[in-house]
Order: sequence, then structure tokens, then C-alpha cells
Amino acid sequence: MASQTTKLLFRQLFEKESSTYTYLLAHVCHPQKPAILIDPVDKTVDRDLSLIKELGLKLIYALNTHVHADHVTGTALIKTKDPEVKSVISKASGAKADVLVQPGDKLYFGDLFLEVRATPGHTQGCITYVTGDGLGQPQPRVAFTGDALLVRGCGRTDFQGGSSSQLHKSVHSQIFTLPKDTLIYPAHDYKGFSVSTVEEEMLYNPRLTKDEETFKNIMESLNLPYPKMMDKAVPANLVCGYQETTSEAC
Amino acid sequence: MASQTTKLLFRQLFEKESSTYTYLLAHVCHPQKPAILIDPVDKTVDRDLSLIKELGLKLIYALNTHVHADHVTGTALIKTKDPEVKSVISKASGAKADVLVQPGDKLYFGDLFLEVRATPGHTQGCITYVTGDGLGQPQPRVAFTGDALLVRGCGRTDFQGGSSSQLHKSVHSQIFTLPKDTLIYPAHDYKGFSVSTVEEEMLYNPRLTKDEETFKNIMESLNLPYPKMMDKAVPANLVCGYQETTSEAC
Repeated sequence: MASQTTKLLFRQLFEKESSTYTYLLAHVCHPQKPAILIDPVDKTVDRDLSLIKELGLKLIYALNTHVHADHVTGTALIKTKDPEVKSVISKASGAKADVLVQPGDKLYFGDLFLEVRATPGHTQGCITYVTGDGLGQPQPRVAFTGDALLVRGCGRTDFQGGSSSQLHKSVHSQIFTLPKDTLIYPAHDYKGFSVSTVEEEMLYNPRLTKDEETFKNIMESLNLPYPKMMDKAVPANLVCGYQETTSEAC
Repeated sequence: MASQTTKLLFRQLFEKESSTYTYLLAHVCHPQKPAILIDPVDKTVDRDLSLIKELGLKLIYALNTHVHADHVTGTALIKTKDPEVKSVISKASGAKADVLVQPGDKLYFGDLFLEVRATPGHTQGCITYVTGDGLGQPQPRVAFTGDALLVRGCGRTDFQGGSSSQLHKSVHSQIFTLPKDTLIYPAHDYKGFSVSTVEEEMLYNPRLTKDEETFKNIMESLNLPYPKMMDKAVPANLVCGYQETTSEAC
């Protein structure tokens, strides 16, 4: 639903095969209607760019919360179709992108911005993008948590530099310290939830309400299968989703 | 995302197999936190009731926009688990329910309400629920259009008393006359869209931007397969989702 501020246009988009959410945000009161996409998927790039065009928006950034293992990011394809768009990922991810962000960095689209919080643990380079605090910024705040925090769940911690201990610390120090009404929009959902809040996850997340030791035990006993897309997706996503060995800038 | 009024709690929920959206609305400032569910699915009733419990809401109505042909409504199962909940469907649907609504009827949950608009054409009994107009009601308005209007699409018109001519009239007279910023939340989406607006559909809906004659030709040439769930779902949904021949009230 539309945000409380009429400035922010917000759309949640879904890619069914990998159960991935892509988010479109735009500052629609700004003359250029600058927009960002968070976690685009290669298979749904045409849908996303078509919507952006219909809404009269100017896409400036294509962001990733982390190097995904279950799908190929749409960033490269977007840049092929619109070379002015800048790709964004964390410096800690070790991936290539036009903009490598670090904790505390701000990404502006018009007068609105997202701040970067380091939330490693699912991967070493996971970040959470949080809408700004202050006058004119969306109220309540909105956190795009990637795979660090899912609705009543969290991402696995058994590959890509994952660490359950680190994930527990990340969520408790960087997400659960946000205002309780902060909206949580994750990178995936497998049960049909679209959104949660900090308060809800602090009360009802079956994993992250537990202490660190219990959480570690839960994560270590998941016995999840090897992700079927991993060997294709991770190498591609380290270079913005280009699927050939390439030196192209992304 | 949360509505512009802090009074309305809003959640969009998804059932992946039938690509059905279920909507949870509640008046959270009211002492009893009264809530309604629109188009619940039998398979996801436990998820929905668990969420309602966690959020401390009191479910009072389980609504259907129409007699679905692709999934079994969750209404009967909800009533089994919470007999105080009242099922709602249109009188024109010919189905049984605790409350049979007609155009212009209002369904209150706390101080908030939904008004009923007749939007036949996909089925003879399709209705659209629209949030109230006036002080204290959500702004912008929100229309739950069922299968009458989907994001960049619409429901088929070739069975259950469907009529493309009638659907064209319904959408143009009952939905496209709402304020342009009215949010459109459909009963299904197959491409990963979650929401649209009246303005967007008036500009970009590939079917309903066309005149009635062209629309009829489009709908008549779809050649869609017979819905695989229809013979199970329709008889059940005519009695609130009870899946045996029964005289139970619903």
C-alpha cells in the first residue's frame, strides 16, 4: 500500500520461481521522479522496466542486498538496457558494482534516501537498506533486510562466509534497534507473507527471538540441500549478473 | 506498506499454487481490534489465523469477492475454528453465507468500513469492496476488485454466468469512476505485481482501456483451458467452502 508520505512511490514485486521480492521506490514529487530498484531478478527485468516506464520514473540505482545464491541479479541486464543506471552492492561482498557502499553511506533518490547498515551472517557482505530518519522521510521507516531477516525466519548461514553467530549479532544490533513500527521487507518469502515489523519479529520470529547459542544450534541443525542455482548464480552475481567471464564494468 | 491512516492495519497475503491474494484489514485503534479477511484460501487458513492471533486482532468477517473456480475458499474452515466469524458473499452470487450483501451495503469493522459495489462479468455475483469515503477512512481509498480487475488484466468471462459486455460496463462504471489514486488490490496476480491504481489501469490495462466491442473480441479469443479446480471448487464455494454435500449453515 502507498506509504504514509505521498512523496514515496512504493511497489513490491515478486519472482515466483525463486520467491524473490524486488522493490521499486521513487520520489514522485521530484521533477525527475528518480527511482531505485532493490534486488531485481534477471527473469523479471522486462516487467520491472516496463512498469518504471509506465509510471514515468527515472531509474538511477539498481541495488543488491547481497550476492544471491538462488537467482541471477537483474543488474547487468538493466544496465544493458539503460546504461545510465548505476549498480550498487556492499564493498564487503567482494563483488563488482558501480557503487560499493559501506555502513553509514546514504543513497539519495531525489530528497529521499536509504542508509546502509551492515548485516552480515547470511553472507559476509549482506547489508540492510533503511529509509531515512527525519523530516520528509517516510514514516514509519522501512527496512529492506535482504536475507538477514525474513518474515518469521532468516537466511541460511552455511555458505558464502555465513555465520550464525554473526547473523544473530547483526539482526539484534542493526535491525531490532530500529523503531518498533519499522516495516520489514525481506528479499524472499516462501509462505505468502509480504511484510512484517520490527516489533513482530522481536516477538514472534521463531529463530531470532532465541539467544545466540540456541540460534546457532537451530541454524546448525537445518540440514538444507545445496542451492541448485548456486554454481551459476554466485559467479554471475559477483559481476552484477553478467553470465560470462567478462571484464565489463558493472 | 502501512496505510496513510495509522488506524488501518493492512496485510497482503499470497497463496502460491492458485496465485491468490488474501487481504487482512483491521481497525487497530479500536479496543477490540476488529478485523476482516478478504478471499481467504482453505490451504492457508492456519497461516492467516496464526497471524491474526499474533497481532491480537479479533476476526469478525470472512469475505469473498465471488464464487471462486480455482481454489476452495477458507471461509468454512475459519468458521470451524472460530464459529463467531461471519461469512460474507454477494446475494447475486447464489451462494450461501451468514451475510448476503448487496450494492451499497457497508461492512463495518470498528469505525472503518467497506462499501459493496456490484462488478459482475467474471461471474454473475462478483463484487468489489471499497474502503469508505470520508473523515477517518483510509486515504487514498482502496478497492479489492476480486477477478473483475487484475493488474494489467481481468478475469475470464466464459463461465459461471460470465459476460464480457457486463464486465466492461462494471469496471468502467464502478471502478474507473473512483478517484484516480485509489489503490487496486486484485484477488490474483500471475506476474508478480502486488498493487495498481485506478489511474494506471485506465491508462495501461491492455484489455479494459479498449472499447466494449474490442474488449469482447479480446475476451472471446482467449481460448483458455477449463479450470482444473472448477468441478471441486465451485460446488464447495457455493456453500462457503464446505467440501461435502451439507446443509450446514455458513
